[in-house]
Order: sequence, then C-alpha cells, then structure tokens
Amino acid sequence: MEREWVEKIGDALKAVRSQKPLVNHITNYVTVNDCANITLAIGASPIMADDIRESAEITSISSALVLNTGTLAEQTIQSMLAAGKKANELKIPVVLDPVGVGASKLRNQTVERILHEVKISVLRGNISEIRYIAGFEASTKGVDASDADMSSGLEAACTIVKTAARKYGCTVAATGETDIISDGHRTIMIKNGTRLLASVTGTGCMCTSLVGAFSGVTKDPMVAAAGGALCMGIAGEIAEEKAGKVGTGSFHIAIIDAVSLMDAETLMERAKIYETRD
Amino acid sequence: MEREWVEKIGDALKAVRSQKPLVNHITNYVTVNDCANITLAIGASPIMADDIRESAEITSISSALVLNTGTLAEQTIQSMLAAGKKANELKIPVVLDPVGVGASKLRNQTVERILHEVKISVLRGNISEIRYIAGFEASTKGVDASDADMSSGLEAACTIVKTAARKYGCTVAATGETDIISDGHRTIMIKNGTRLLASVTGTGCMCTSLVGAFSGVTKDPMVAAAGGALCMGIAGEIAEEKAGKVGTGSFHIAIIDAVSLMDAETLMERAKIYETRD
Amino acid sequence: MEREWVEKIGDALKAVRSQKPLVNHITNYVTVNDCANITLAIGASPIMADDIRESAEITSISSALVLNTGTLAEQTIQSMLAAGKKANELKIPVVLDPVGVGASKLRNQTVERILHEVKISVLRGNISEIRYIAGFEASTKGVDASDADMSSGLEAACTIVKTAARKYGCTVAATGETDIISDGHRTIMIKNGTRLLASVTGTGCMCTSLVGAFSGVTKDPMVAAAGGALCMGIAGEIAEEKAGKVGTGSFHIAIIDAVSLMDAETLMERAKIYETRD
Repeated sequence: MEREWVEKIGDALKAVRSQKPLVNHITNYVTVNDCANITLAIGASPIMADDIRESAEITSISSALVLNTGTLAEQTIQSMLAAGKKANELKIPVVLDPVGVGASKLRNQTVERILHEVKISVLRGNISEIRYIAGFEASTKGVDASDADMSSGLEAACTIVKTAARKYGCTVAATGETDIISDGHRTIMIKNGTRLLASVTGTGCMCTSLVGAFSGVTKDPMVAAAGGALCMGIAGEIAEEKAGKVGTGSFHIAIIDAVSLMDAETLMERAKIYETRD
Repeated sequence: MEREWVEKIGDALKAVRSQKPLVNHITNYVTVNDCANITLAIGASPIMADDIRESAEITSISSALVLNTGTLAEQTIQSMLAAGKKANELKIPVVLDPVGVGASKLRNQTVERILHEVKISVLRGNISEIRYIAGFEASTKGVDASDADMSSGLEAACTIVKTAARKYGCTVAATGETDIISDGHRTIMIKNGTRLLASVTGTGCMCTSLVGAFSGVTKDPMVAAAGGALCMGIAGEIAEEKAGKVGTGSFHIAIIDAVSLMDAETLMERAKIYETRD
Repeated sequence: MEREWVEKIGDALKAVRSQKPLVNHITNYVTVNDCANITLAIGASPIMADDIRESAEITSISSALVLNTGTLAEQTIQSMLAAGKKANELKIPVVLDPVGVGASKLRNQTVERILHEVKISVLRGNISEIRYIAGFEASTKGVDASDADMSSGLEAACTIVKTAARKYGCTVAATGETDIISDGHRTIMIKNGTRLLASVTGTGCMCTSLVGAFSGVTKDPMVAAAGGALCMGIAGEIAEEKAGKVGTGSFHIAIIDAVSLMDAETLMERAKIYETRD
C-alpha cells in the first residue's frame, strides 16, 4: 500500500520537474521568499500576484493557486476570494493554508469565508488549525500548533482530519510529527520529518507551496497533499542530518537544498507512509 | 558587576527557551523573515499580525510587542498605535525600533506619535536614530548610522542615550560597535560584536526582536535590552569566526545559527559588559 | 574592446565600495530582503521607502532609485511615479525592472505609465519582458522568461533590445544566458552566468539592485547596466562552482557571498564581454 503511494508521488514529482507548472500565491510577506524558492526547488514556477486588479487574471494562466492567511489585509482577502472563484470556474486547484486560524476573529472569519465561497482542493495546516476548522475546541497559540493539541494522540487527530475533510468536501492535511492526510474516505499517515522543522518559520507555508506545485500536475488531491508533505518531511530529515547541529539558519538552507535535489529514488528509500481505510 | 548582568541575562535566556513567549511584531517587510527566524532561534514564538482588525487582539495574547518603522504604511501606523495601547493596558512590554527616524518627515512624525501615545519599555536603534530622538542634531543617511554620528566618542554617546531614556522614561539601547544601554540611571556598555554586522540588512531589527523575546520573560527592561544586544553581539563574533571570510550571505546564516545555539555558558565566556553609574 | 569595458566596471565597483551610494527601492515583497543584502554586498546602502508620504523625500537624498513591479499595489504604483518624477527633477538615475510585464493588464499599464511619465536610465528585464516592451509578441509565462522567447537566437534578441532602447531613449539590459545591453547605439553582450541563476527567485531583481548601486556612482548608464549584469553573472559562476551541487538554497547564499567578495581583479579574470557596433 505504501509503495503504491510513493510511486504515485514519484511520478507526480517527475511531472512537476518536466511541466514546470505556474503556481500563483496570495500569501503572507513573512515567508513569501521561501515559498517562491521552494516552488522553484521542486521544479515549478512561482508567481505572487495579490493585487485585486490582477489576481484573478494571473490565476487564470496558472496551474494552481495557493492561498495563505499568514498576514491578512483587506486587499489581499478580496484578492483571495476573487482569485479563488476564478480558479474554481476554470477548474484550477486551490490550496488553502489557514495560518493562525483560531487566534483572531479576523483569521476565523476570513478562513470561514474562503471555505464557504471557494471550493478548496487541499487544506493544509497544523493540528491546532485543523481542529479549529473541524469544529473542535483548539488551544491555538499564535501561528504554531499548541503542545496540548499535539499530544491528543494519533487516533483523535485522524478523527479531526477526517471530520474537517468531510465537512468541507476536500482533502485535509494536518502536518506535524506525523502528517495525517484524508479526503474523508482514504486516510494516510506520513511519519517522515523532524521536530527541527518547527524551529524555522514558514516550513508549513513551504509545505503548502509544494502541495500547490503537485496540485498543478495531478488530478488526485490526495497525491498532491501527500507529495508536498512527504517531500517536506524527507527534506527535513536530510537537512537535519547535514545541518541539524550547525544551527537553525543552516538547517533552513539545507531544507531548500534537499527539496531541490529530491527525486523518486530518495522518496522510495525514505518514505514512511501508512494508509488506513475506514 | 559584569558577572551579575551576564547571570541575569543567562537566566532570562533559559526562561525564553522554557516559556517560549509569543512575540507579536508590527514590522517592515524587508527583514521580517529574519525577525521571525531569530525569534524562533532564541526560543520564543513569533507572530506578525499587523492588520488593524487583529493587531490589538493578537497582542493581547502575546507576551511582548515589537514595533518597527522600517517600511511604514498608513494601515500599519494605525495598527502600531492600537496594538501599543492595548499592550499598555494589559502591561505587556512594548519594544520600539525607530528605523530611519531622522530621514523623513513621515518617520519623524510616526516615531514621535508612538513615543507620545504608547508607553515604551525598550527603545532600540542605531546612534543616529537615538541622537535624533534625544533631540540632538543627527546626520542620518537612510537607515544606517552615519559615520559622523558614530565617531562622536563614547562619552558623548552615553550622554545621548541617557538623555533619550530620561526624556521618554524608558530603557534606551543604541547598538553599534559599542552598545550603550541606559534607563537614565543605570548605564551599561557592551563591547561585543563586529563591524561585519553592518554588512547584513536587518541585524538591528533582529536585535530588536531578541529584545522583544527577552521582554516576554523578564520584568527588568535593562536585562531585556542588554540580553538582546549581548546575544546579537556574541552571535556576530561567532558568525565572523565561522564565515566572516566566506562572504556576507554565509555570515548572515551563521548569525542565526549562533543565536540558535546560544546558551548561558557562551554568554559568560564571551560577554564584555561594563556598567557605569552616575 | 572587452578590456576597456571591464576596466570601467572595475573602477565603478571601487567607487561603489568607497562612496556607499544610498539606493532607494520601491520593490516587491518577495525578493526585497535579497535586494537589500545584495546592495550591501556590492558596497552600497539600501533603503526601501515606498509610502507615498516619504518615497519622493527619501529619493531626494538617494543616489539612485530602483523601481520593480514584482508585486504591484495601488499605493506603490503612486509612490513609483512620485519618486520617479522627483528623481528626474534632481537628475538622480532611475532603474526600472518591469517584472512580469506581459502577464497581466495591470503590469502592462503600470510599466507603460512609468515609461511615459518617468525618464528611465536603465531598464533591466528578461527577454520576454523586453520583447513585450519593445512591441514584439511575447509568450510570457508569469515572471520567468519563456523558453520560446529565449530560443529566438542572439541576433533577434539584439534587435529587440536595441528597439526597446531607441523606443524609450534609455539603456536596456535583457539578462539571461547571454546578457544583451544596448543604448540603441552601443551594444554589449555578456556571456557570463549560469542557468542555475533561474533556480533562485529574485536573481533578476538582485541584478537590478546592482545596476542601481552602479548607477549611483557612474554617469554612463551602459557601465551601470553592464556592471550589474557582469557582477551577477560572475557571482553566479562562482556560486555554482562552490555550491551548485549542494542545492539551490546554498547556491542562493553563495551568490551573495560572491558579490560581497567581488573585486576588479575577479572581473578582469572572468569577464566575457563583447561589443558590437552598428
């Protein structure tokens, strides 16, 4: 079962590298450079067009759209909705990263509005964010997952992810020490990665950009979500081996290095994917 | 005397790493990624919520607030005031970095307005910026300290810093080759650091973020200010030893590495802190 | 012929390092940190003042102004026009990077408006962008040059660059595998660089910042444009030798390292500049 998923992801990786899908981002200004560079590193082409006067137009020539709520502003919220609707119209997949949802009314209302007005292909967040979206109580603390939410156990987390997926009819990925990905029917766990990923800002955002790149070449959102999460997890492991003891600045650079060198063979060697069916 | 300060800073560093204080930033878009990563590197948790509809709300769940005027815009100025006032109300320390004050009317007016409407805990800038705020003539050139302002001598600089501290009733840190920190009564000089720090954009902003992180765990603004300045100075020295000759890109990464590995022992070994009482 | 150009560029590089010209940028939020750091690495001083209330004022104390359309917004467009006009008034050179022109109406209209209302000293873009501006059909795809536009041959590319230069009476630089620089009369080709430069976001923007730094010290826009392109190309080669196989994150850092260590000798050893006169 595992092997089959890894093969699909490997094929999708090859497709990204050959097709170089254009991925439009309406994202935050904190981690945007890393999002662009990780998109290039996996083989896709990033663009960040967030002005309302061009966000829909640029989206219409893109292969995927990434929406990220890390730093909200009135203009970009409007752009997210306009670009999201245009993407839906043209059947371009939309990936949503609800950064910090649960931490402020603005974030809650914005994410809710996007989820209601735009059909999302993949929703990727940390477990605190997904808990909130699924309708469970979340003890969110800013933009990082809370320890309490993380320690609730794998089974509980799977239930949360499945609930969110069914509620919004999309694929949901809660990434963390174990990534849980579900479309409400199929559920995958990925046990790659390292705790060190939490020591660099934007590793979640970067994962979402990778999901965006994969979404530009595959029709299966589960493959796109798992592809992004798996590449990020394995890149984290490789980066830790190379630079984990050097410091978080070098670890950060090593993550992008590892994604730029990622190939199907490395995925096959390292992947720890497990599927559970209901 | 020196040893006592280093011990307090070492204790505060341990507290940052164990308490992981949330530090909200309303800052510029040039160095924001480095600010977030240095905040994580020292052990705190960064968030950058600058929209007026959430800046006060997010600040209210934070342990410290950092205001930085590097790239001003109407919306963020309003957010700074709103978040600053909320922080004052809740007794959450506010750290101000008046980037480029003296270089434009907008910066002068904004910094003045913040200083009058918000009670600042620590004001950190370069000597040109602090000169301007203290009411002395400053020959500021953009966002970097001018050579003229830097060569005016240590004693003159101490007078400037103390004047600014008394004028606004807060702790003031003028960082540079020698960091001068004063609350108007106690005055500290830190002789750590390297000229190379000026070759990377945002080392001042990053220092301010470190002060923000320390402010989240200590009630003494002098310890917070000295902690940020000392960690940045020592990190600069370590980074220079590792990467000074490799180039400024590698030096930049090595700064973040060094902060992520900083501990009380390293502070004790390297600190060059001197106190002068009036 | 080649030697003469390299000597002029070498002299300009020395002038940048001794005069430290202040370069104001109104640029995008994706690559702005790299733009600031590459400006420091070449020896100049960056500032990013894009608010309409200070953009002209800060420009008036600057030695050059860089305009970059990577992420447009209503406010920054107005700031670009105001700052550009102020620069023209004070004879401060303006460098324009028309990122993504051809990809959306907003970008097309904005670039057209800047070109009509502001006298540009150097226009630097990729070949797709310059094609569009010259009035030729361009198959632009987002912010990267299209393969079709790149494969049209050197002679055709020279014609395009010269056409754009004559159309707007400025120096035009189309950078890519071969950089073509022309003021409509003199035309230079630079064959330094590496394809790897396309794997990091913002290498074009960084090149434009370097042109801005050189523009702050030389009165010949051809020297400024060639200086920026040559330094970027050679830095790319050095970075590839050091980190090409390590990954694109390390390659990115190595570019900035190489620019920070660039000197006249290295330029002379490595430059591949060729001039063609009509």
